[in-house]
Amino acid sequence: MKMTTAQAKRSFSGSRVARLATTGNNRQPHIVPVTFAYKDDVVAIAVDHKPKSTKNLKRIRNIIENQKISILTDAYNDLDWSQLWWVRADGIAQVLQEGADHDELASWLVDKYVQYQDIPLVGAVIQIKIHTWTGWSYSG
Amino acid sequence: MKMTTAQAKRSFSGSRVARLATTGNNRQPHIVPVTFAYKDDVVAIAVDHKPKSTKNLKRIRNIIENQKISILTDAYNDLDWSQLWWVRADGIAQVLQEGADHDELASWLVDKYVQYQDIPLVGAVIQIKIHTWTGWSYSG
Repeated sequence: MKMTTAQAKRSFSGSRVARLATTGNNRQPHIVPVTFAYKDDVVAIAVDHKPKSTKNLKRIRNIIENQKISILTDAYNDLDWSQLWWVRADGIAQVLQEGADHDELASWLVDKYVQYQDIPLVGAVIQIKIHTWTGWSYSG
Repeated sequence: MKMTTAQAKRSFSGSRVARLATTGNNRQPHIVPVTFAYKDDVVAIAVDHKPKSTKNLKRIRNIIENQKISILTDAYNDLDWSQLWWVRADGIAQVLQEGADHDELASWLVDKYVQYQDIPLVGAVIQIKIHTWTGWSYSG
């Protein structure tokens, strides 16, 4: 059954991991698991812990070529398919290397994941402005 | 640490759920969770249990416009990031509506998921020929 937008946002923001899909000029989709934080139709994604390698990441190169992205959270339960649900958020991405917005989004990630207190979040953050929510659950 | 291709195939084929990314002519990536079966660099994905709606699915329309796809399996463990791993398989997709290849791929899915004995697999199957494997694990 289709979720309402409010349900979709709730399920999405309660998730600990998401998958990010990007596509550059060569039309080859790219997909990676990501940690993320969410507030008010904006998603923050940490790029990397090793700033030197950040610029060469395929997801970054794709976003520079094509800002349209999609990000998915879901629940899979092999023993009970009636528990399945997923939420897809489509939006426009931007890579923030530094500045006030960068630092604000990085702080959301540190607040959500205690791990970033041990593995400092350095380097770029991806900011995504979500324009379309789609959510589905098996049992409504 | 980077996985070898053999490790990547092993981790991928042992997974119960994957995420499929497609992109059509409008360059908007699309991503959905999927059940899948794997053998010898070919992935089979079930499309839908309701054949009437199959043809209008976005993933199908995207594949018809652009056969390049990417499919990801991963493990996320919120309590222990040293357990994280992911495998991405890039390939060329084709939608099979019927025929011997369709039936062969459908049989892989039924063998893997007992659920398809109760929810019959009807309608199209997506066949993906994988050309590139990329795998990463936190702890190698």
